[in-house]
Order: sequence, then structure tokens, then C-alpha cells
Amino acid sequence: MALYVLSRRLSTRSTSTTLLTLRFTSNYSSSSSFREERDTFGPIQVPSDKLWGAQTQRSLQNFDIGGPRERMPEPIVRAFGILKKCAAKVNMEYGLDPTIGKAIMQAAQEVAEGKLNDHFPLVVWQTGSGTQSNMNANEVIANRASEILGHKRGEKFVHPNDHVNRSQSSNDTFPTVMHIAAGMEINSRLIPGLKTLHSTLNSKSIEFKDIVKIGRTHTQDATPLTLGQEFSGYTTQVKYSIDRVISTLPRMYQLAQGGTAVGTGLNTKKGFDVKIATAVAEETHLPFVTAENKFEALAAHDAFVETSGALNTIAASLMKVANDIRLLGSGPRCGLGELILPENEPGSSIMPGKVNPTQCEALTMVCAQVMGNNVAITVGGSNGHFELNVFKPVIASCLLQSVRLLGDSAASFEKNCVRGIQANRDRISKLLHESLMLVTSLNPKIGYDKAAAVAKTAHKEGTTLKEAALKLGVLSSEDFDSLVVPEKMIGPTD
Amino acid sequence: MALYVLSRRLSTRSTSTTLLTLRFTSNYSSSSSFREERDTFGPIQVPSDKLWGAQTQRSLQNFDIGGPRERMPEPIVRAFGILKKCAAKVNMEYGLDPTIGKAIMQAAQEVAEGKLNDHFPLVVWQTGSGTQSNMNANEVIANRASEILGHKRGEKFVHPNDHVNRSQSSNDTFPTVMHIAAGMEINSRLIPGLKTLHSTLNSKSIEFKDIVKIGRTHTQDATPLTLGQEFSGYTTQVKYSIDRVISTLPRMYQLAQGGTAVGTGLNTKKGFDVKIATAVAEETHLPFVTAENKFEALAAHDAFVETSGALNTIAASLMKVANDIRLLGSGPRCGLGELILPENEPGSSIMPGKVNPTQCEALTMVCAQVMGNNVAITVGGSNGHFELNVFKPVIASCLLQSVRLLGDSAASFEKNCVRGIQANRDRISKLLHESLMLVTSLNPKIGYDKAAAVAKTAHKEGTTLKEAALKLGVLSSEDFDSLVVPEKMIGPTD
Amino acid sequence: MALYVLSRRLSTRSTSTTLLTLRFTSNYSSSSSFREERDTFGPIQVPSDKLWGAQTQRSLQNFDIGGPRERMPEPIVRAFGILKKCAAKVNMEYGLDPTIGKAIMQAAQEVAEGKLNDHFPLVVWQTGSGTQSNMNANEVIANRASEILGHKRGEKFVHPNDHVNRSQSSNDTFPTVMHIAAGMEINSRLIPGLKTLHSTLNSKSIEFKDIVKIGRTHTQDATPLTLGQEFSGYTTQVKYSIDRVISTLPRMYQLAQGGTAVGTGLNTKKGFDVKIATAVAEETHLPFVTAENKFEALAAHDAFVETSGALNTIAASLMKVANDIRLLGSGPRCGLGELILPENEPGSSIMPGKVNPTQCEALTMVCAQVMGNNVAITVGGSNGHFELNVFKPVIASCLLQSVRLLGDSAASFEKNCVRGIQANRDRISKLLHESLMLVTSLNPKIGYDKAAAVAKTAHKEGTTLKEAALKLGVLSSEDFDSLVVPEKMIGPTD
Amino acid sequence: MALYVLSRRLSTRSTSTTLLTLRFTSNYSSSSSFREERDTFGPIQVPSDKLWGAQTQRSLQNFDIGGPRERMPEPIVRAFGILKKCAAKVNMEYGLDPTIGKAIMQAAQEVAEGKLNDHFPLVVWQTGSGTQSNMNANEVIANRASEILGHKRGEKFVHPNDHVNRSQSSNDTFPTVMHIAAGMEINSRLIPGLKTLHSTLNSKSIEFKDIVKIGRTHTQDATPLTLGQEFSGYTTQVKYSIDRVISTLPRMYQLAQGGTAVGTGLNTKKGFDVKIATAVAEETHLPFVTAENKFEALAAHDAFVETSGALNTIAASLMKVANDIRLLGSGPRCGLGELILPENEPGSSIMPGKVNPTQCEALTMVCAQVMGNNVAITVGGSNGHFELNVFKPVIASCLLQSVRLLGDSAASFEKNCVRGIQANRDRISKLLHESLMLVTSLNPKIGYDKAAAVAKTAHKEGTTLKEAALKLGVLSSEDFDSLVVPEKMIGPTD
Repeated sequence: MALYVLSRRLSTRSTSTTLLTLRFTSNYSSSSSFREERDTFGPIQVPSDKLWGAQTQRSLQNFDIGGPRERMPEPIVRAFGILKKCAAKVNMEYGLDPTIGKAIMQAAQEVAEGKLNDHFPLVVWQTGSGTQSNMNANEVIANRASEILGHKRGEKFVHPNDHVNRSQSSNDTFPTVMHIAAGMEINSRLIPGLKTLHSTLNSKSIEFKDIVKIGRTHTQDATPLTLGQEFSGYTTQVKYSIDRVISTLPRMYQLAQGGTAVGTGLNTKKGFDVKIATAVAEETHLPFVTAENKFEALAAHDAFVETSGALNTIAASLMKVANDIRLLGSGPRCGLGELILPENEPGSSIMPGKVNPTQCEALTMVCAQVMGNNVAITVGGSNGHFELNVFKPVIASCLLQSVRLLGDSAASFEKNCVRGIQANRDRISKLLHESLMLVTSLNPKIGYDKAAAVAKTAHKEGTTLKEAALKLGVLSSEDFDSLVVPEKMIGPTD
Repeated sequence: MALYVLSRRLSTRSTSTTLLTLRFTSNYSSSSSFREERDTFGPIQVPSDKLWGAQTQRSLQNFDIGGPRERMPEPIVRAFGILKKCAAKVNMEYGLDPTIGKAIMQAAQEVAEGKLNDHFPLVVWQTGSGTQSNMNANEVIANRASEILGHKRGEKFVHPNDHVNRSQSSNDTFPTVMHIAAGMEINSRLIPGLKTLHSTLNSKSIEFKDIVKIGRTHTQDATPLTLGQEFSGYTTQVKYSIDRVISTLPRMYQLAQGGTAVGTGLNTKKGFDVKIATAVAEETHLPFVTAENKFEALAAHDAFVETSGALNTIAASLMKVANDIRLLGSGPRCGLGELILPENEPGSSIMPGKVNPTQCEALTMVCAQVMGNNVAITVGGSNGHFELNVFKPVIASCLLQSVRLLGDSAASFEKNCVRGIQANRDRISKLLHESLMLVTSLNPKIGYDKAAAVAKTAHKEGTTLKEAALKLGVLSSEDFDSLVVPEKMIGPTD
Repeated sequence: MALYVLSRRLSTRSTSTTLLTLRFTSNYSSSSSFREERDTFGPIQVPSDKLWGAQTQRSLQNFDIGGPRERMPEPIVRAFGILKKCAAKVNMEYGLDPTIGKAIMQAAQEVAEGKLNDHFPLVVWQTGSGTQSNMNANEVIANRASEILGHKRGEKFVHPNDHVNRSQSSNDTFPTVMHIAAGMEINSRLIPGLKTLHSTLNSKSIEFKDIVKIGRTHTQDATPLTLGQEFSGYTTQVKYSIDRVISTLPRMYQLAQGGTAVGTGLNTKKGFDVKIATAVAEETHLPFVTAENKFEALAAHDAFVETSGALNTIAASLMKVANDIRLLGSGPRCGLGELILPENEPGSSIMPGKVNPTQCEALTMVCAQVMGNNVAITVGGSNGHFELNVFKPVIASCLLQSVRLLGDSAASFEKNCVRGIQANRDRISKLLHESLMLVTSLNPKIGYDKAAAVAKTAHKEGTTLKEAALKLGVLSSEDFDSLVVPEKMIGPTD
Repeated sequence: MALYVLSRRLSTRSTSTTLLTLRFTSNYSSSSSFREERDTFGPIQVPSDKLWGAQTQRSLQNFDIGGPRERMPEPIVRAFGILKKCAAKVNMEYGLDPTIGKAIMQAAQEVAEGKLNDHFPLVVWQTGSGTQSNMNANEVIANRASEILGHKRGEKFVHPNDHVNRSQSSNDTFPTVMHIAAGMEINSRLIPGLKTLHSTLNSKSIEFKDIVKIGRTHTQDATPLTLGQEFSGYTTQVKYSIDRVISTLPRMYQLAQGGTAVGTGLNTKKGFDVKIATAVAEETHLPFVTAENKFEALAAHDAFVETSGALNTIAASLMKVANDIRLLGSGPRCGLGELILPENEPGSSIMPGKVNPTQCEALTMVCAQVMGNNVAITVGGSNGHFELNVFKPVIASCLLQSVRLLGDSAASFEKNCVRGIQANRDRISKLLHESLMLVTSLNPKIGYDKAAAVAKTAHKEGTTLKEAALKLGVLSSEDFDSLVVPEKMIGPTD
């Protein structure tokens, strides 16, 4: 195949592209020898050192779209391992030969552990049902199980369809692995990342609870609040982020398996759907159940659109938080300068204090991607026809990317930025006391008109409120100090 | 103002545009007389027949964007009525003069009932805090309350800031009315519309439970299912739609009121926030509570992004359902023709049976708009700075449009389409029995190879499976009829 | 009808909704008398004071979605006036009775001028071909033309189909009015708004060309540039905005008229398509031509998706500009404070200098809406089937909203914000000279290591660079002043 | 580093994640030995077999986001090769030591050819200026050039900053490589893919020009057209797709190089910008020029948003085409069945004729992704601050993915689907002649009323029009055949 693809490329693309393709193609196989595999279309050459079979090979040739970067995400591959292991286990209850069943379970476990990743070369941009990736899993597991049992690759001693895919259809397995992968990634990456971030933001909120600072609305100076209060807003946003994604999980935990080709469950046995959901739940320690309605579970992926909506909301939240932090940390001299961000890498070789908020930048870029993915998922989710939505791989790929990027970047942001944020107390205090807004405290004592005159004088002459007040002679220095106390302005009165 | 705007327009725009502007401007006031109103900027002319004051008038002149079509949505105006009524009620507990308080409550009730809509001319495209619409409400209610108490407009016997806006800031009132309006519209329009649609789809699913039909995957013929099963998928999608929006309400029911300018609650009394949330809950019969964290409630509108994500999911679901229904109803002769849709208007004057699926079209267009609004809301929600998100009006406007359009179009789709759908039993049966896919039933009897031969012969020669089977002599007519029974293919076996 | 709708509503919706509906319904007709109109479906009651006929009335009843706010945009209604006038003119060349033709032209002219807007009550959310709005135009023009000729409404002396719609189909007229309306609005609103903004930004760029200021990258202090250079970036963005939308117009100026029902031109005469495009071009003074391929022109609206992409780009540009301006104008004391924005309305009653950047806020909210509309248009544009895209009204509505909002808000932003921006020269100078970044100028004289030591000392001790340099004794005061000259840092060297 | 990352992971993540991380980490280095590299932050361990230096290594550790799948796209890496080669060439004109300059050129050429891809491990989710990838290029090229000159890695005989990055800043190099990469990919992948598709669609349009078929509007039967006409619509869509992307290139061909840190060109020489753009143009054979305004070129990426808008339009076009083709090819028995699509892989093992439209599915999934990427790019593009947009990597990554996926999938769709499409002439003819819509041809002969009666009878009784006409006795069989001629209905009359 490698040679075939290469030669085809050579004839139609530019030299530089060919070089690229050559490299990529060589990734698919480090071997130059091939064996023959067959399917109902006939024989086809497959690299000897690969476990996949004929249908995988055809897909590789027919969908030359995007290169290795666009491969089916690893969590999908691993979820296939989990599912096929569970399917073999349940199929043995329904009569599958235990020798074969156990070999399938062992091979599938290797897939689940990521040991056979190199044998899953197919890209996202294939058939919209994910059939070819299901066959890839069936073929790899069948060949590996055959080897375990002492047979050769391609011999089909363990058969990809009759044994590995028994009682299954691509149309129910692919949605099932989508849900398994998403459920696992959300629980193992996203929620832990958000929880860590929440915890550290909360600690900062407590650490900063006594630091009174100027508030800003419309980006303009406003009445004061504490830095702790400001961080409590961020903390709450992340707390609700966790709530939001969790509130979508009940529908994500529903598995399509048992619906087979169109949702009716033709060619399965009664009870198969419940048993396999139970097996997956045991294997993953997550509360998967069989889907209440298999027709919906094949024909729509509303659960993914819904969860993506939660991720999109999290992205909006984190973009707000990261933007605030970089603006509050702007400077060192000519910005707001209220926060001191940790310095993780050289910002500028000559200018000390130039700490670029690179973690904020990585995080906000992730948020942009997540917002885009939400649209891709929505378009895919809305375009199903009849008994099957055929945008499954793009929906899965986008959601899993969003989950991973949000989880990883939340963790990175916590570790490399939030954890090390320090308040620039001098700067905060200076800005607070220069502010004209504190004049509102004078109202009860000297009246609205005189207070306004004080503020106007200070603004016009560029002085402090106190200087203006003393100049206008409206009250004494002592009175000013006893009245203008920002610390009394940070909550409702009794 | 009308004359001013007109003359400016005349000098810069084309004639036809001017005509348009002239008409629109005249909508703002049917009167040619003016009175003077004032604010801290000084005096300004206001149409005599309008209740609004100086700040509203300034906004009208400074934000000449989009025309009357772009006015703040009515549910926001009405929610201001509710909120200001509740605020007066609670403020009386905290010392507001009861004569003034009661007049405010009466005037605010008129706003809540929509009686003063014509006095709310401001567009969405104003200050991003919605301050000007809050002032519009304060001014209208103050002038109306003044009149109720026998005073003149503009006299400020009841003061828009000191009385109507007492203990409030635009920064907490506007988010509060956003939540009130959204909560009410979701409960009064969206959920009822979806419930009606769900109920009728469910009835159809039961009505069609015995009609076996061809399944379609990849838009290609597949194994059979019942039409009732197919509709059960749609039913489930709408059921989950309701669940989805309901699962976002806990955060929508949180009110920012009491946070005032930056979330600290400066200038309110302790307990004000809880009392006013209780009052709103009583007034609306919805479980509104005070927001757990007022900083988050002013600085972010994640609750709106989240709910919009649920609406976006509903849009994806309904687009799927409507697409299926129009394709299944395509014809009358050259389409799939399995469903007969109700005819609500002339499709074609000459061609009977050309029933355009216009309700599906209106609904899918609504879905497109909702998907777009979700992006607008996300962009707005992610762009807050510091203590205040200043994309509030666009966020509110988009969400309320999405809610109303989905609710109304779900109701219209149910009433004018789904309720009247009939199964074209003859057509369904004809397609089912012509299908080659039923050949799978022969496998156990004649073996895979002969079954495949039957199918290939039928496909090649354009005959039925039965004709092909008899021609090939692989089984008798009676055997064929006893084996090929689609009704046995619609579920798992025992 | 009003009573009919009301009573239906009363039985199914809540009281408050009913009140709303009552008001809206009354907008449709101030009359309580009705006349009978008929179509192929039979007779129907229509308000006596309205010019529309049976098909409009049916749509009004069948598509009770969104209320009057959701009516077909006025530019579409006016474009129908233009098109129907042109069609009558061309049809007279092909044999239409001149008496009738001229009456149609007169009536259509009234529609084009917006005089009959009240007779176009239909909402966007109707049939996806816009057929009902085409019939609305046909009915209104037919009745009005009949009246002009001394006949009664409903008599069909001038017939909506046979005369007004002659040689046309909804399927080619609606795309045609979409293109006419978009072309006109882009030329009369959007481009003038952008040109004005460009011109004023350019003036500011020149006005500020000698003001050297600190640059900011990553929101952090960086090397200097002039304020004029900074504004030249904004100017260029708006210049390209104009280029971008203009580059999409060649495809927008193509008209579908002449394609009739499916693009073939059945029931028109050869040459009709070219003649009518010429007539529209003359009427609008815009270079409309007949579409090169009518099948594409009915089945897709790629030209709208493309133009929306340009609008989306303009939105991204303007959001950048508006964000910068509000951040550079933040303060008055605790922000960046480099720009002084004009004060258009009270920002705060007590705090002078609190000038909220409300024009920036309106503009950025518009940008969010435009970004959302782009997705709605894309979803609609991608979902056409066979010979007809049936998302026409939503595509038209979103694009026209985006065009108008961008045009109006660019004009408002120019007039009420950019035109009045002043540089805060003292503040700019103060920040520039406090900056540590100027230390790079010392490298050639004292070497990298000593320069870095100066900067580090200044950063650590919070002093100026000069103070640090003198303290460290690395060079004299005079040398410092002659070396550290930001004005020499704003361009490449010879 | 590998060990470091692993151990950190082991302590915080689940076992299965660790296994994944282990594999990924091992991709970064097959070596277990390290050398020391340094930057202004101090020393750091780098894998001995890698050419990168300290700053790359820090980024790798600080941005553990997404894994190898998320690496900076290869076209960016290669464009760095091109740019650094050109920079060395121009820098030699300005005094760079030719020995060093030539070694840089040689090393950079290796990067341009993709030979050093393994030395570019950084992910997209890093600093938003792309600084770290610029340093990665500088470090790799410096080390490789040092080796070429007989020096060791890490010695900095050739210096990454002083030599390789001379006269450059990350802030102008990264936007420059973005434009180079996009310009090259558009010209080498996207446009060729679209041109091939256009050519084949055009051939099909000619091949099918005499096949008259039923038209469909609203998914319902309509008047006829030829299959060639239908394909001419698709052809036109793809033709305009090419025009659209080309019309955005003038702004894509503008290079930021020479603007350095903030757009002023500080630390470059006059003329450097023009010379380097010329060198890039020569190297790439594309008409790159220096950007008219460098401030815009650093602070905004409107050119990317604009081009993405064109890609989004192409996606909408291709989704329409692919949807039509799969629906027209639906069947084999129970769909529309007008087209026969090539069979590329087993659709169903038992059911001949089940040809899943898998190429349509891959293509429409790509379209969904492109639509999503457009939103991500828009969000990134609109969120720049001051002198630098810091969403550069996500903007570049999304655009390059969209370009490649569209180009590859257009080519795949052409080769594996469109090229092999056959018309099912029998089916097309059968549907056409069964249609009731042909009745319109009888109007001139028997009048509207009798024609309508014929159609109604046929619809009601399920017969052909001819049968109904003969039954009603309205005309003879010969008259029917001479009148009902679809071939006369496919264009305007003379």
C-alpha cells in the first residue's frame, strides 16, 4: 500500500507534498512486506507487520484525507477495546466458544490499554457511521486473538465479524464507543482538571479576602470590592462549570449497544443490551446503562450536542477568567498591574518584569477551539437522516478534543499560573486611593453637591480627593480619613 | 428629536432610506409637541405624549442603530415591571414612603401587563449593561406614578433614581430582568410547546406501532422497523429536549438583585437580596432565589450560555425530526411517499398532492436561527471584563428570541403538521416488500450463498426477491412466504 | 382573524401571554370589519382595511411564530416593489395589457417607497421558499392596482398570479428580492457607514502621528510606537473591511429571475431574464445582471454565505478596534487612561470622569450578533435540497440584519465616539517614560549586562530607569537623556 | 523530561492515562540520554538526539496540553524553514557572516523539506504569539547549522537569536509563516482539489445533458429539468468556490515580516521588509509582498478570518452537493434511485446494491468541521489586544486544517465518487412519467379545469395521467402523447 499511495501521489502532487506524504505513509508501516487479506470485495495487500485486515486497508486507500494527524482519537480506539472485551464476555453467556471468547478478551484488553494503537491507522474522515473503525477493531482483535491461539494473521481462525462483532453492528458499536470514550475522558481528564482549578481559585479567594481594590465596570473605575470577592466570582464560575458538565452525564451514560443496524435489535438476543451495558459499567467503573430508546441512540447524537453545549459554556467561563487575569496582571509599569503572575519562561531577555501571560493565552486559544467544535458538533448532530446519523466520527472527534483540551489546559493554567499568582498590594492600594469614586462616602457628611465639587476639582486638577477636599475647605483631614474608608464599602449595610 | 434625526439623515442617506427613516421615526411619537426633561447632563426635549425621561431620550438619539425592529424584547420590558413592583414592595419594608411605594407598584404593574410598551423605545444596541433600559423603566414608572398621585410628568414627584431605582443599580437590575424574562418565557412558551409536540409524537408512535416499514441507514435501504418505532425516536428526542432545558433552570432561577454596582451590595441593606428574590418568586410563581455569588451574577452570563446550549441541542433535535418528516413525506409520486402530510395552503394550483412541508421549513429555519444565536450568546458571554459583562442586551435578546421561536414553532409544527400526519400504508408496504434486504431471512433455510444469489438476481433483473427465488428454484412459494416475514425482524429474538 | 386568533390563544395560553397576543394581533388590523377573499383552497375572511388576500391570510394563521417583531424585513418588502414594477414593465413588452401594466407599476412603486408596509404582516418563519411573501406582494399590488383602476379589493380585476406574478415563480422572485435588498442595503448603509468610520480613523491617525506611546504585546509593556501608528492599524482594518464586502458583490449582483420554478425558465420567454435584470439595474442604479446559472441561483445561496463571511470578518475587525479603544480609554484613574472618550450621557451621577464607552459596547454587541448570524446563514445555506433551498427567509433576514446593524453602528461609533476621541498626552507621556522597556536604548553605550542591571534595579526598587542608572553610576544624567529617546524607536534604521 | 513528565503523571492520573502518556512521551525522544541547554532562565536538560534547545524544552514542559496530536501543523514548520532561509539570505546582504548565513540556509532548507519534523514537538496550545515555535525553529536551525559547520549542539556557534532570528521578532515571524503556509496549502492542495472536482462535475453535466428528469422543490415533485442542468448547478457552485478563495488571496499574500515587535520595524533596517517578501516570493513561486501596514498585520488576523469565510462558503456548497448526490443515489429499491454511485467497499455482505455513499459522508463531515473552525478562527481573530493578536496558533491550525481537509476530501470525492456516477436512466424515466406534474402541458389543449380533473383523478386512483385522461375521455391517446413531452419543458419558449 505504501508504494501504491506514494506512486499515485508522485503523479499528481507537487514534490514537496510528496515528500510529506512519503514520510506519513512510512508511519503506517515500517515494513516493506505484505500479506493478502480478503473481504467480500476480494483480496487486498496489507502490510505484514500490521494486524488490520482488508476493510481497514480499503478505507486507508479510499479516504486519503488529512494524513495521520487526523486519525481516529485514541480514546475511541481504547473504548473499542473495552467494548469488544465486554461483548466477548457477554457473548460467551449466549454461546460463544470460550476458547475464542477468552482470546478475544485478551486481545481486546491490549487494545484498551493502548498497546495496539499503531494498528489503528484510519482517519476521522471515513464513512459517517464509523463502520470502518469498527471493522478495524474487529480485524485487529481477530488477528491478535488468532495469534494468541497459535494461528496466523489473515487466517480468520477468530473471525472479525462472526466472533468479534457477534450480536453487534457498526451502527450500535460506534455510538457505544463514543459514549464510553466521552464518559471516561470527562471523568478522568475534564472534571479533575476543573476541580483542581476550582480548589486553587477558592484558596486564592480566601488568601485575598482582605485586599480591598478598585472595582471596574464598563472597564471604568467603579466602587471597591476585595480581591477575594473578585476571585470568588471566578471560583463560582468554575464550580458551576463542573455542575454543568455533570448535569449532562445522565444522557451520556446511555449506551446504544443492542440496537444493531437500525435500533430494533435484530440479530441480538433479548437482554443482550442490558448485560453489555452492565459489563461496560463494571469495566469502567462508570454508571453506564442501556439506552432507553435505541432508535434515538443511533439516529441522533443529541447527548453529544448537549455535552458540547456545556463545554462551550465552560469555555466562555474560562475565557472570562483568563482575560481578567491577564488584564489585571498587565504591566509591569504601563498596565493595571494588580496581579503578579508567575514567570515560567523568558518573556523578554532585556526587560525584567515582562511576564507574558502565556498560560492565559493557551487557555483562551483552547476556549476558541471549543467554541468552534461546538458548532461543528451541532452541524453534525442536526444532519442525521432516518435511522442513522452519519456524522459520528466528526462529532466524536470534536467532543473528545474539547474535553481533553479543556481538561489539560485547566490543569496547566492552575499549575503554571493560578497557583503562583500574587497580589501586588502596593499597586492595588495606590490605585484604590487615587480613585475618585471613593467620594461617595462623603455624601452623608457634606452633601451631594459639595462631594461632587470635590470630585470634579480632583479630576480637573489631577489631585487626590483628599487634596481637593482640603483645598475646597469642606472638611478636615481627620474627618476625611475617618469617612473615606473603602473597607466599609464592600457589602450591604445592616 | 424626530425632526433632528430626519434632517441628519436627509443629508447623508439616499432618498429611499430617508423615507424609511421618516416612517420609523414617526413611530416613536405621534405627537409634535414636546416637554423638557432633565438629568445631570442638562435639559432635553421629550415628546409630550411619552412617559420616558431625559436618559431614555439621550439613548434614543445616541444609538440610532437598527430602527424599531431592534427594540428591547417585550419580555424584558414586562420583567422590569415585575421587578420594580417587587422592589417598591420590599423598599417599603425598608422605609420607602408607602404613598409613593404604592403608586410605583401600580405603575409597575401596568408595565408588567404590557400596557406601557409604547413608552419603551430603546433598542438592544445601547450600553452593554442595559443601564438605559433600566433608566427607561425608572423614568416611565416614575412619571406614571407621579400622574397617579396627581402630579405632572417631568416634575419628578416620584423620582426615577431615588424612589423607583432605590437600593438598585442597573448592574444588578438588568441581569435580574434577564433571568426573570427567560424563566417566564421558558415556562410559558417553550416547555408547553415542547410538551404538546412530545405528546402528539407519542400518540403517533402508538398509532403507527404495527406498521412495518423499510429502515434506512446512510440514506440506503436497511432492515425493517415499525413506523411507530421510528416515531418513538423522535418522541424521545423531544422528551430529552424538555429534560435538557429543565436541567439548566437551577442556575437561571438565581437573581443578581442585591449586588448593586459591582456585586458587593453597597447601598443596599442586608437581607434585601433575599427579600426581593422571594417577592419575584411570589409574583411569577417560579422558584427564583437570590444568587449564591453576586460577583459571578454581574460579571458573567454563563447561565444564559448554558441555557442557550440546551436550546441549541433542541434545535439540532428538531431539525432532525423535521428533515425526516419532509423526506418521508416527499412525493407525491417521485419521492419516498411514506407519510401524508396535512395540506394547509395551496402547494400548487394545478398539481394535486403537491403538499409542501411548509411547517417543517419554518421549524428548520428557526433551528438555524437558534444555532446562530447560540454563537452570538457565546461570544457575548465570553467577553466580559472585570466586574461587569457588558453584552447583556444582545445576550438577552438572542436567548429570548430562541426561546420564543422554538416554543412557537414547536406548537405550530404540532398543530399544523404532526397532528395530521397519516401513514401511506400502501406505499410503505410496497417499498418494504420490494426491498432486497429481506433476503437475510432466507439464510437459515437455504444458506448464505444461495440467499446472496437470490438477492443478486433480483437486483440485476429488477424483480422481487420472491420472483428471483422461484426462478432460481431454491425454495417454494409457500416456503418463501412463511420465511420472509418482516414483522419478525423488528426486535431481538428470545 | 384578530378575534379568531385571540380566542384560540385564550384557550391555550396563560393570561399574561394572551394580553401580549391581544396587543400584537391588534397591530395587524385596526378594523373590525372583514371582506372575503379566495384562493384555490376556498374563501377566507380578510380585514377590510388591508390590501392582502387569501394566501397572505392563511400564512398569518398557519405561522403564528414570533409575532410582529419577526416580520419579513422591510428591505425585502421594498425590493418586491422594485421587482414587480420591473416585471410589469418587461411583461408589457411581452404583451401584458398596458392599462393593467401601468397600474401595477404605480402600485409597486408605492410598495417600493414603503408606503404599504402595513400590508405586509407575514413573518420570516413561513415557507422556506418565501412563496407566501411573494403572494403577499402579488395580492397587495393586485388589489391596489385594481383600486387605482376603479375596481374593488378582492375582485381580482388585476390578478395576483396572472398579472402581477406573470412569467415569475416564487422560486425565482424570492432569491431575486434577496439579492436586490442585500445589494441596496450594502451600498446605502454598510459601505457609507464604513467609509465614514475609515475617514475619521484616518484623520485621527494623522492627528496623533507625533504622539509616542508605549506599545503593548501580550497585554504587557513593549517597545514604543506612535498613537498615530496604532490608529493606522485600525484604519487599515476598516479599509480592508470595505474591500472585503466589495469583493463579494459580483456574485450578489446576479439575479435568479427568469429561472421560474426549478431554474429551467419554463413559462418565461427567451430574453426575459436579461431584460428584467437590466430593468432592476436601471431602477436601483446598481449593476445587477442575470445569473449565469439559474439552477445554482435557486438551489443555493452561496452568495449570501460568502457575503456573510465578509460581514463576519468586519465584525471581527470592529470588535478588535472597539475593544482597544475602550481599554485605552479605561480609567479615569485606575485604568490605562491614554484616550479620552467623548461623554454622551451620564456615566455616573457622582463620579466625574466616569465615561462609559457605551458606543464601543453597542458596536461589540452588534459584532457578536453578526458572528451568530453568520452561523445561522451557513446552516441555512448548507441545507438546501435538490432544485430549491428552502431556508431563504432566514438567510435573508439574518444577512439584512447584519448589514444594517454594522452600517448603523459604524456610523454611530464614528459620530458619537471616534470623532471626539482625544489623546491624554500627559498620561501617555508619563507611562512611556516610566516604562522599563526603554532600557534597550542603553545597550550600545553600556552593554547588555549593565543595561539589564539597570532595568532589574528599577523594577525591584520601583524607580525610574534614570534613577536606577544614576544610582548604579553606569552613566551620567546627560548621557541618559541623550540616549533614551523613544522617538528614535518607532521605525527601522537606515 | 520524559521521566519527569511520566513520574508527575503517575502520581496524579489513572493507570490507563499513564500508559497513554508513556507512549506519547516516548515519541518525543527515543533516547534516554540528555544534554544541557541554557537560556536566560538558566540550564535545562534536553534529549541528546534532538536539535531543539532550552526554550523549546520549557514550552514542552509548561504546556502539557493535548499530546502529540496537537502539534503545530507541519505546513507551519516547513514555512519556518522557508522564512529562515530567506532571512539568512537577506541578512547576508545586511552583513551577516556568509559562512554562518549559508549554514543557516542549508539547515533551514532541511526544515522546509520536512526532514527535521521530529524536532518540532511543540503543541498549538502554547503562547498565543507562537514565540515558542519561532524559538523552536531558531534553536533547531542553529544547532543543525552549528553541526554543519563542525560544532556541537548547544554550543551556540550559530546563535538562535543573534543569527537565525536576526532582524526578526516572533511577533512578525509567526504571522509571516502563517501567511506562507496558508498561501502554499491553498495553492497546492485546495485549489487543485476543487479544480479537479469542478472539471469532473462539468463533464458529468455534459454527459447527462439529454436526460430529462423530475425536478424537486420543497423535496416535492416539481417541473422537469435535465440531469445535466442539475449537475450544472453543482458545477457552478464549485466554480464559484474557486473564485471565492482566490478573491481573498490579495490580503493573504501580505507578509508582516519587518514589523518586528510591535509593527514599527525597530531593530530592522529600512528595506528589509521588502527584500524578505521578495525572497519568499521567489522561494515559493507565489506573489507574496510586504504588508501595507505592519501594525494591522501583527495586531489582527482579519486575512485569516476572511479566507476562513470563503472556506466556510465552500463547505456550505459542498455539503449541498454531497447531500443531493446521496439522496439522488438512495436505494437501491426504496429511495429515489436516480443515480448509481460507485461501490468502493462492502456496504453490506448480504445485500447487493447497498452502496453506502461513504465519500459523501466523509465530505459532509469535513464541511461540519470547516464550519466549526470558522467560528474558532472568528473568536480568535476578534480577541486581539493592542499591538498583538495572541490567538495566532489556533487561528493558523484551524485554517490549515480546513484548507487541507477541503482539498483532500474534494479530491477523494471526485476520484472515488463523482467520477464514477452513473445515471439510472430507467428509474429516472419511470419517475418522470409517473409524475402528475406533467399535466400542465395539457392546459392549452383542454383547459385548466379539465387538466386539474385529470390530475386529481390520477392522484386519487393512483393511476398515470394518461390513464386518467383516457378514462375521463378528455383527449385521445395520440393527443396525450403529442402534448405531454417533458423534453419541451426544460427551458423558456421563444
